[in-house]
Amino acid sequence: MSETRTRVITAFIVAPFVVACFVSYKSLIGLVSAVVLLASYELLSMSTSSDKNKYLIHVGVILNVAFVVLYGFSKAENGLLYLSLMFIASAIFLVIFVEEIPQVWNAVLGTILSLIYVAGCLSFFFPIYLKFGWANALLTLTAVWLYDTGAYFVGIKFGKTKISKKFSPNKSLEGIIGGFLSCLAFSIVYKAFFEWLFDAQVMPYASLPIFSAVVSVFDTFGDIFESALKRYFNKKDSGVVLPGHGGMLDRIDGLLFVTPVTYILLTYGIL
Amino acid sequence: MSETRTRVITAFIVAPFVVACFVSYKSLIGLVSAVVLLASYELLSMSTSSDKNKYLIHVGVILNVAFVVLYGFSKAENGLLYLSLMFIASAIFLVIFVEEIPQVWNAVLGTILSLIYVAGCLSFFFPIYLKFGWANALLTLTAVWLYDTGAYFVGIKFGKTKISKKFSPNKSLEGIIGGFLSCLAFSIVYKAFFEWLFDAQVMPYASLPIFSAVVSVFDTFGDIFESALKRYFNKKDSGVVLPGHGGMLDRIDGLLFVTPVTYILLTYGIL
Repeated sequence: MSETRTRVITAFIVAPFVVACFVSYKSLIGLVSAVVLLASYELLSMSTSSDKNKYLIHVGVILNVAFVVLYGFSKAENGLLYLSLMFIASAIFLVIFVEEIPQVWNAVLGTILSLIYVAGCLSFFFPIYLKFGWANALLTLTAVWLYDTGAYFVGIKFGKTKISKKFSPNKSLEGIIGGFLSCLAFSIVYKAFFEWLFDAQVMPYASLPIFSAVVSVFDTFGDIFESALKRYFNKKDSGVVLPGHGGMLDRIDGLLFVTPVTYILLTYGIL
Repeated sequence: MSETRTRVITAFIVAPFVVACFVSYKSLIGLVSAVVLLASYELLSMSTSSDKNKYLIHVGVILNVAFVVLYGFSKAENGLLYLSLMFIASAIFLVIFVEEIPQVWNAVLGTILSLIYVAGCLSFFFPIYLKFGWANALLTLTAVWLYDTGAYFVGIKFGKTKISKKFSPNKSLEGIIGGFLSCLAFSIVYKAFFEWLFDAQVMPYASLPIFSAVVSVFDTFGDIFESALKRYFNKKDSGVVLPGHGGMLDRIDGLLFVTPVTYILLTYGIL
């Protein structure tokens, strides 16, 4: 089976479950917790090299998931506070239990990176959901999927102008344009359909091109940043959890940058 | 001049300026920004080893101070959002401008560590000031000073039982007890005096022993954590900005853990 075919089949199996989690705020907390569990495990496995300290991966993952649950159930308030407390907890745990100093540094840094990059950034689905409604939250997720899909297929077929030889040699300008257009087309259909079917509130039509541009730019940077991290650790994929898609972190790397930026633009009335 | 004498003189010169900054919220933002500027510079100088990439230190410092200013002026709201945006900005800056991949990793990690450890943790003075009044904010700072002073002098005179041979061989149980007692005595005098003089609101007397215990425990861990980082980087002091005290980071390491913990205990009515 070709990788593309595996990728499409996986997407069609997993996507409905993910979308269904947007039906309630509590199921969304469950979804984000599960994704952060897998992605932070992958990230911490990359950054914690020594076999002797494998248990530090689990401590870091627990702190990441604890952050998501606390932040989610406190209605997306006090995010910085919970993040700081998880960081302090990891620092105290490590100075008590870890013997070698380089391990303290690597393990704390891996945990911090994961807290802010994976758990923190993905948790912006909570305030989007609570303040701007489930329809805008689901649009943020699905628009990124459509962007990725458009960029992938257009990139394979027409990709010529490489944009990041250093970190991500497969990215092309043509792919980004294809991603932008499929994201925009999808957003328009999404808005028309969901407002008609559910009376849901989606950002105005005039905002959709800006939103699609934001998705294109920040998804691309998110992807390149994760590629840079993987190259540093000499990994091709962050994991194997999603056949044809690589690991969970590979799948959400763009989303991690898109979500906080979408939230701030919604907050300031730009979208 | 002995180190102790230099230390005392520096303290008596600097302390009045620092205390005066608590007179208004805006001057507090100025104080926290200045401290974060110096401390994040020291931390980033430790973590960025290569001379070629010295400018990355400045980028990281700018992002740290920008976080403090944004968070302060938005009335201690949206902390997680600003932290995430600074992280995304640093990641994008680095994938665009930095050539070598290990540099991306070190520079982003140094910036993230500083954002959460220095800028994030110290910024909890803002919500303490806004929600629980200037008197509780100033108490958090000065109680840590008195704890440090008590622990230092009692430790020098009576210190026998070492608590962290690994990371911080000078710490003793006797010092911690001395610190706790001087912190508690000071807090009682502070509350009595400030409530009489300014009609200020300070946490109840019954909370002061708990508060002093929190200061003792988290100040000690904060100090040990910073020692662990410095040992990893083979530095004795984080800098030379305060004669007799080492660097700014050495001076505030305990405070960085005490401040968020004090805020959450105040928020949940435990203090």
